[in-house]
Amino acid sequence: MKSIKIFDTTLRDGSQGAGISFSVEDKIKIASVLDEFGISYIEGGWPGSNPKDEEFFGLMKNKLKNAKLTAFSSTRKKKSDVTKDESLKKIISSGVKTAAVFGKSWDLHVRAALKTTNAENLRMISDTVSFLKEKKLEVIYDAEHYFDGYIHNKNYAVETIKTAISAGADYICLCETNGGVLPSYIDKIVKETAALFPETKFAIHAHNDCGCAVANSIIAVEAGCQMVQGTINGIGERCGNADLCSIIPSLQLKGKYHCVPVRNLKNITAVSRYVDETANLIPRDTQPYVGRSSFAHKAGIHVSAIEKNPGTYEHIDPKHVGNKRNILVSDLSGKSNILSKAGELAINLKKDSDNLKNIINAVKEKENNGYQYENADGSLFILTQKIENKYKDFFILKSYRVSVEKNKDGSIVSEATVKLDVNGKEEHTVSEGEGPVNALDNCLRKALIKFYPEIKDVLLTDFKVRVINSDANTAAKVRVLIETKDKKHSWGTIGVSENIIDACWQALSDSVEYKLLKNF
Amino acid sequence: MKSIKIFDTTLRDGSQGAGISFSVEDKIKIASVLDEFGISYIEGGWPGSNPKDEEFFGLMKNKLKNAKLTAFSSTRKKKSDVTKDESLKKIISSGVKTAAVFGKSWDLHVRAALKTTNAENLRMISDTVSFLKEKKLEVIYDAEHYFDGYIHNKNYAVETIKTAISAGADYICLCETNGGVLPSYIDKIVKETAALFPETKFAIHAHNDCGCAVANSIIAVEAGCQMVQGTINGIGERCGNADLCSIIPSLQLKGKYHCVPVRNLKNITAVSRYVDETANLIPRDTQPYVGRSSFAHKAGIHVSAIEKNPGTYEHIDPKHVGNKRNILVSDLSGKSNILSKAGELAINLKKDSDNLKNIINAVKEKENNGYQYENADGSLFILTQKIENKYKDFFILKSYRVSVEKNKDGSIVSEATVKLDVNGKEEHTVSEGEGPVNALDNCLRKALIKFYPEIKDVLLTDFKVRVINSDANTAAKVRVLIETKDKKHSWGTIGVSENIIDACWQALSDSVEYKLLKNF
Repeated sequence: MKSIKIFDTTLRDGSQGAGISFSVEDKIKIASVLDEFGISYIEGGWPGSNPKDEEFFGLMKNKLKNAKLTAFSSTRKKKSDVTKDESLKKIISSGVKTAAVFGKSWDLHVRAALKTTNAENLRMISDTVSFLKEKKLEVIYDAEHYFDGYIHNKNYAVETIKTAISAGADYICLCETNGGVLPSYIDKIVKETAALFPETKFAIHAHNDCGCAVANSIIAVEAGCQMVQGTINGIGERCGNADLCSIIPSLQLKGKYHCVPVRNLKNITAVSRYVDETANLIPRDTQPYVGRSSFAHKAGIHVSAIEKNPGTYEHIDPKHVGNKRNILVSDLSGKSNILSKAGELAINLKKDSDNLKNIINAVKEKENNGYQYENADGSLFILTQKIENKYKDFFILKSYRVSVEKNKDGSIVSEATVKLDVNGKEEHTVSEGEGPVNALDNCLRKALIKFYPEIKDVLLTDFKVRVINSDANTAAKVRVLIETKDKKHSWGTIGVSENIIDACWQALSDSVEYKLLKNF
Repeated sequence: MKSIKIFDTTLRDGSQGAGISFSVEDKIKIASVLDEFGISYIEGGWPGSNPKDEEFFGLMKNKLKNAKLTAFSSTRKKKSDVTKDESLKKIISSGVKTAAVFGKSWDLHVRAALKTTNAENLRMISDTVSFLKEKKLEVIYDAEHYFDGYIHNKNYAVETIKTAISAGADYICLCETNGGVLPSYIDKIVKETAALFPETKFAIHAHNDCGCAVANSIIAVEAGCQMVQGTINGIGERCGNADLCSIIPSLQLKGKYHCVPVRNLKNITAVSRYVDETANLIPRDTQPYVGRSSFAHKAGIHVSAIEKNPGTYEHIDPKHVGNKRNILVSDLSGKSNILSKAGELAINLKKDSDNLKNIINAVKEKENNGYQYENADGSLFILTQKIENKYKDFFILKSYRVSVEKNKDGSIVSEATVKLDVNGKEEHTVSEGEGPVNALDNCLRKALIKFYPEIKDVLLTDFKVRVINSDANTAAKVRVLIETKDKKHSWGTIGVSENIIDACWQALSDSVEYKLLKNF
């Protein structure tokens, strides 16, 4: 097993992604999660570029247990004294022991962006690396646009990294900044470059503009790089950076490289979800290794094959990355799907019992009518409890009425009334809302809260509407999925109807019933 | 330029993705979009596996102008007569000229899934390919799990494709079914296999379980494959198939391969969005080449560098793929976009006119509020007519009221009333419906039909609902898209509101107004 250093730049390059904005607290929490996970280097930001990053480094002094906290900067300004460079001085005062500094490798950028000479750019690189080395820092030199530079002016690109190496850089990171270089070039250029400097440690930094960032990173490692820069979930500018959640398991489980402590790899799914949560991003279900659908199986034949030999349709055991096989309960399901789902929901079902058969038939019938339990464990649980005679009526709907009125002035009023029988007592409530569903939700809570104060903690977190047979026009069936959480758990519920309001009602009332039935 | 055949399996393998379900109507529309775009082969489904796919092939006879429609099947059942195989008979009766048949390459699957002998599996392959060749079909033989098979039992894997080649297969498709093979293995195995059969045409079919499907496909082409199988947006089982929206531009713009007609490449962004819309998937902003953020630039320095030389921070010109640089301050992208759209809608707009600027601003403001005109040409047309003062009020809404009542016996009544001013005359109608939206639709038609009998031919054909900011729970904004057609044309309209009923009303009334304004 060859050791590969993982350099995480979620907090620096990742934060450049559209719509992503981390607070200082967010950054501190993410850094601590990455540290626990076993990342070698955590790039926290560019202290010379904004006060938020400066504050972050101030608060992070001596906080990390395993990782090396790293601060980022450009090389010194052109034609200036390196010892007076503000950005570099802030690296020193940040207290980090490792710095990542980027310089230009592509002569086009030296002319167009820096507006200086190739020779001055080399001095900027040399001065900067030497300065930081004199201050006893470990220096990772990021050769920006190295691959484009190499393709357009190989000699100069090589000259820039030679300069950084001579000045004492500990790592040379070959950056594929624009993300447009295809795998075969990466392979060739890394190999040729590594051969020129056999004593040097190289890193790769890839972007995903061709959809090849993960592959390019793996190829670069195989071609000789000893460090990979990337971000959790591949967040970052434009199409993002290389996704460490794909790279780490691929290298460690298949490539026989060592990236994070073996015992920690199973935490990678949790790390991925945590970062999405903090960045307020919806997790991508199809994300390799860590997505909710990454190990999803629909067909009964697949499920039974997998139970005999998981290798038939799974490239790794999902447990290795803390993910799980997701047996989708659909109309394609057989017994094995339901039994495995029952285990998850802590329902005791015996193989070949009547209850099991009845549940399978009930699910199939529901799915024929447009229900789908893939994301509605809450509604599935209620269904099974009914069949097992373990269901209890916490409330019975007597009637509801929802109305939406729009007037000439454009104002809209949405009002709902709900009449419930709660333990023999009639509750009749009325409420307005932002729309008819919100009004109905408010009404239901108003009616129940005095009987079941525990629903105070219950919060709707997601709401999805889909037309199922959309070719049937406005009389089409509608499927509503609601996700709910309390302080510790989360669950999904579903409603299906030709009437969108009634579909919402079903999902809303299941959401509350599940909480009351489980009595967590 | 070497020609590469693109084989699209969005409608077959793509539809296996979690939560994806295409209607026959959806499939027909997608096939026609792919055909226009210049895809060589369109795999429509497995006629032997379900009646929906059979219906699709029935309706598609002689419909495609450029692409070869392809039907999918397994090899014949074990120990049976190939001429009596139901699935193969349905390929013949489907009327396609090209068949894709898959067989086992991995001996583990022969034992565990087929439960037969290696020798019988070879006969199944041979019989199936020979049978289809005798029926004069072009045959693409999909070697399922070829790479895993090659790694575990090379001799047998090679023997299976040798069998298919001897039986006359036109293409051998090397399938990376489980998605777990890393790029360097793909390169090695494709090269070794191609060297064994120098006369054979090979294809690649990759899955994305390691995040390498796109790179693996490109590498396979460089290693000798002449066909790529994939799906639009990479939809498909588990982590998805290889994304053709990354592969096609990479091969065509960088690899110097010819995949689709050069003039069509600029349509790939529209094709990508169309498929997402039809599958009711939220487009991924960071998707390479075609995502909304793929060419997004945050920093002012980047923008000014790009204005001098776009190559500094963009790997290709976004125009080549019909995407746009996403710079908030720049009107340039907006103008060309609107001008090209205006052409489609037969609106005369002059470059640099005030109307053009006003339209751009109005669209931007609407888009900030959640509107999206890609699939709502009808609503965009109305917007432009208003700004150009060519708009006419065919009816003015005075008020509407919608109510849904559910009673103790479970019966639900949905009723709507609409009060309109039509040419100075007040029309007040009431109607019931299957749900609130259907009731509203019925009401609107009832009010207008005597004034505008031409709306009799107007039919809603599709109806989609999406929650935009779903984290705001039941108070979230909702986007409704409606598609409408008359005897000759079809158009889309949109409504956005925190109130789902009002979003529907906007889209419904736009749908009728468009018909009246266009007066086809």
